[in-house]
Parts: sequence; structure tokens; C-alpha cells
Amino acid sequence: MNVRLSCRCGIDTHTHVVPGAFPAYAGRLANVRWPSMVDAQPCHRHVMLAGNIYRTVSKQCWDVDVRLGDMQAQSVERQVLSPMPELLAYWLEAEDGQVLARFLNETLASMVSAAPQRFSALGAVPLQDVDLSIRELELSMREFGLAGVEIGSNINGVPIGDPRFLPFFEAARELGAAIFVHALRPAGMDRLVGPPALEQTVAFPAEIGLAAMSMITGGTMAKLPGLRIAFSHGGGALRVQVPRLEHAWQNFGLLRDQLPEGPTAVARAMYFDNLLYDRGAILSLIELVGDRRVMVGTDYPFAIMDKDPAGRLDSLALAMDVRERLSRLNALDWLGL
Amino acid sequence: MNVRLSCRCGIDTHTHVVPGAFPAYAGRLANVRWPSMVDAQPCHRHVMLAGNIYRTVSKQCWDVDVRLGDMQAQSVERQVLSPMPELLAYWLEAEDGQVLARFLNETLASMVSAAPQRFSALGAVPLQDVDLSIRELELSMREFGLAGVEIGSNINGVPIGDPRFLPFFEAARELGAAIFVHALRPAGMDRLVGPPALEQTVAFPAEIGLAAMSMITGGTMAKLPGLRIAFSHGGGALRVQVPRLEHAWQNFGLLRDQLPEGPTAVARAMYFDNLLYDRGAILSLIELVGDRRVMVGTDYPFAIMDKDPAGRLDSLALAMDVRERLSRLNALDWLGL
Repeated sequence: MNVRLSCRCGIDTHTHVVPGAFPAYAGRLANVRWPSMVDAQPCHRHVMLAGNIYRTVSKQCWDVDVRLGDMQAQSVERQVLSPMPELLAYWLEAEDGQVLARFLNETLASMVSAAPQRFSALGAVPLQDVDLSIRELELSMREFGLAGVEIGSNINGVPIGDPRFLPFFEAARELGAAIFVHALRPAGMDRLVGPPALEQTVAFPAEIGLAAMSMITGGTMAKLPGLRIAFSHGGGALRVQVPRLEHAWQNFGLLRDQLPEGPTAVARAMYFDNLLYDRGAILSLIELVGDRRVMVGTDYPFAIMDKDPAGRLDSLALAMDVRERLSRLNALDWLGL
Repeated sequence: MNVRLSCRCGIDTHTHVVPGAFPAYAGRLANVRWPSMVDAQPCHRHVMLAGNIYRTVSKQCWDVDVRLGDMQAQSVERQVLSPMPELLAYWLEAEDGQVLARFLNETLASMVSAAPQRFSALGAVPLQDVDLSIRELELSMREFGLAGVEIGSNINGVPIGDPRFLPFFEAARELGAAIFVHALRPAGMDRLVGPPALEQTVAFPAEIGLAAMSMITGGTMAKLPGLRIAFSHGGGALRVQVPRLEHAWQNFGLLRDQLPEGPTAVARAMYFDNLLYDRGAILSLIELVGDRRVMVGTDYPFAIMDKDPAGRLDSLALAMDVRERLSRLNALDWLGL
């Protein structure tokens, strides 16, 4: 029995990066919503978009040494770095989006190169233009050595399961890219009552479920066996959507032609982080998708992060081999390492 | 040990009614989207709206004797009758909505009077006009003897937790009305990829979660202790939304002023049906809200119904006293019987 092993969290698959600075916009358009950083309180900077503070972030977002210190404190061996989702910036014209994605990918590659045993990275692609996004993905994988890419749950309102994105996912599979789908610009904003932070706290779990379901019901998952795709926030509502769709599939043949194996079987080919903040909810997700598909994810370093990923794993009281899958092995599978 | 008891399902809280016929529209407007019925195949009628078939339904929807036979086959002692949700028809002008609600409530009262030991009923109110809806609720309770009312998860896009609906919920509490919130016109329709039936199968679980959360985050639940309100489809995404909101409440004080007890405690004051089609999902809901808040619900007699409610209860392998709560006692509490 290795006590140290039982206390550790191997790989945190859900951590975000904001570069310490952005290049000035150098494109041909006027009034572009291009990010920049300005100093805030010590060790913090404001992410500025269109003249407004989008979010004030700490140097944990860009400083490798700070991150390594935090990882030691958390007993995290490796972080999977991905951009703060707003930086995916799908609102940009595609060429501008490519420039921003390239800068993010270079930044991420640089952070990985500083400690390649401690970091993997998922880049950005301008998915508002599928062809450009495929070219950027190829470059990210082959030149920058990224493990894959983070994408939004929808691209300017179009769910990722829409057939227009199929060529992108085909390319990701061919390239062996890991895909991390993060809730972004959620559906249901008009159904919230309360402060702005409910976008992330209440709407994200509904949104990521809808996005994952679109990959099932649109047929992308069934068409691309072997695609390595993970969903943020434990897949959110997917946990209750899949059995309901399974019931409809079994009892009145809904989607029977597109899904010969049924929606539950398709969901069990997806990966999920465990960012559900609740032992029972995580165990219930594992029950649905199996213990080879759930990984640690914390949202480091943002306010809503799950602060003690190793403690969260411990709370599940899993058999040691299953704990090791959640802690490390499933993430290695997803990342193709 | 009473074997018969262990096989039974006491109260099915989620069953729908469509009247066998509707009165002709007698209001003052033109081109009103008013329902009517026309004959279809034997024992079936089409529900017509604006000249189109909205749904083809069977005589189970309106025939008490057929229902009683089905209940015997299912071992269901009592059905809680509520209108097919589309008939809530919040798109109508309020006066027209009141006329339709009155007709539905009279129909429901008549069905209950045919077998008052076997049926309870939840009526309709024109919630597009809060004052009118309060008057109709009073009438439904006092004159027609209904147990309460079914409402949509949003009223023409406005979530039920919006403060404008607070007087209605205050009145419901004062009158001792049971409220059943049913997913309707869901958020996220633009995030679905596939056939029309995904509205009910995939979007409803996200929608009912957003609606329930709006009653928490908007403060209605905290302001009205003792309100007896239930949510369809096991509350859907609420199972994953509540722990995330709880984490934000605990860690950065989100909604701390409005929710002195925290969102999980508030959720444990709500009731839910068990229409999740999955043993693990139902048990996970019970874990969150407690075994005094979950009730049987099937969606009888529609295509997506959970066909064997007693078998579903058996599958949970609950202690006999807990099974009895889910089967009957929790519904009696909610209904105020």
C-alpha cells in the first residue's frame, strides 16, 4: 500500500491559461473585440474586451512557476492547460481568430516547454471557419506539440454536433488530437433569475449537456469511433438526458437509424471531467459512463475551482485501481500519452 | 411482510389529460390558436392547433374507465391528473386563457368526481395574467375541489422564479395548493441537432432544471416556506446545478444574502417526480433532496411514459418504509391529503 499514491491527484484536465499580455491587434478591421491586459492589484491583471473588464485574473493564469508551486500544494502531477474559454473568441473574423489562436497556441507551447513533465496543453482553433480550424489544429499538433484543442460547447450559437463541424472532428481523429469541450455562451440565459455569476454556475451545466447530446443525436460520435473528446463540468445535464433518450430510443425507436448501439453506449465513448462538486453526482456519472471515462478537472485557477482535487478523489472511496484510473490513466488515454 | 404492498405503486403524480372535445372559441379575437379535437384512427383523436395536428392522442387521455383499467394493470392506486402541458396555452390573451383554463378545470373536476378515491387533479391557470391566475386558482380549489395546479416551467419565456410571479405563489401557499411545474417550451431549442422529438427528450431535462433553479436563485422558495411545489422529470439538470451553486455560495458568497441556508437546503424543500428512467439517477436525486421529496411520475398516457412504475420502484431496492414514502406518502404530503 503506497500512502503517497493514495493522496495524490495525477492529472488535472481542466485548468485555464490567460497570457500575461496580448499583441496589439494588427488586422485590417476597425473596432475589433480583441483582448488586452492591463495591470490591476498586485499579481493581477484585467482582461479587457471592447474597453470593459471581462475578468480580473491572477498571475497563476500565466506564470509557470506559480502554477508549479500550486500543483505541489495540491499534489497534482500534471496540468492540462487550456485557454480561458472566452479567449476562444469565435466572434472574430476568421483570419483575426486564426491570429489570436496562433498566439494562444504559441503561449501554451512555451508554457509546456518550461516543464514538459508537468504540463500538457490544448490549444485554440478558429472554429468559426472549419477549414482554417483544421489547418490550425494540424499546426498546433505537429509544430507546437500540443495534445489537442479546447473548443466551445457551441460556435456562435451553433451546437458542436451540427454537421458543418464534422470535418473538423474527422481531422481531430486523424491527427490524434484530444478535444476538450467547455461550456461557453450558454443556452438558457433568459431563464436565469439573479446575479450575472449564474451564467457559469447554473447555465453551464445545462449547456454542456446540450452540447454533448448534440454530438450523440447529430451522429458525430457514431460516425467517428476513436474520437477522443471530453466534456467539462462532468457533462452536466447529460447524466439525466442520456437515460431519457435511451428510453425513447428503446421504446419508440427515436434515432434508431443513426444510433445502432443506443445513446448510452455512445455516451460511454466520451470522456468527462469530474467537476461536479459532489461525491454522489460524480459516482452517478461513473455509473452511467464507466470508470474509464471520468477524469479529474478543477477549473484552476478561477474562483469556482474545486480546490482539493486529491481530497475529492479520496471522498469517492474508490478501489485503488479505479482511483488510479480517475486520477491519471483515463486522462493519459484521452490525451493519447 | 405484505407482498402485495411491495409490488404496488401508490400514487402516480405525473399523468396527463386531454378533454375529448373542446368548446368552440367564443371570444372576440380572430385567428386565435384555440384547441379542438378531430377524429383519428379508432380510439384516437388529433389535438388541432391553428389548423395543424399538434399531437394524436388516445382515449386514455379523457376516458376515466380506460384509465382505471390501466391503473389496475399498473397497480397504481391513484393518478394525479394534469392537462397535457401544451393546453396551458399561455400564448392566449388572458381572458381567453381564463376561459380555456376554466373548461380544463371543469373537465378535470368531472373526472375526479367519477372516482374520487382514484384521482386527484391539478388544474390550469392563465399565468400570463397573474391576477387572473390567482382568481382562477381560488375558484379551482374552492369550487372545483382541485388539489392545485400545473404550470409551465416558463411563461412565454419568463422563468417562473421571476419576481412577477411571486404573488401567484403566495396565493398558492395561502390556499394550500399543490403546484406541479412541467417543462414546456424549453430553452436550448437552438442547441438541438436531430428530429423534433428531441424537444421533449433532450431539452426538457435542461429546461426543468433551469426553472427549478430560478425558484431558488430568485428567492421565491426562501420567501415562501411551506409552499408545496413539485418539478417534472426529476428536476432534470437540478441534480448537477445545485452542488455547483452550493460550492459558489460557500466559497465566494454567491447569493448569500438571499439564501441564508444555502441552495441545497432550499432544494430539499422542493418535491420531484422520479421520471428519470434510470435507477442510479433516481437514487442520486434522493441522495441530494432526501427520501421525503421524491414521488412516482410516469407521463401516462404518452409515448414516452415510464410503463411500469411499480417495477421502477422495486428496482430501487429501497427499505420498505422508504419505498412507501416514494410510492405514496410523499405525494400525499405534497397534495395536502
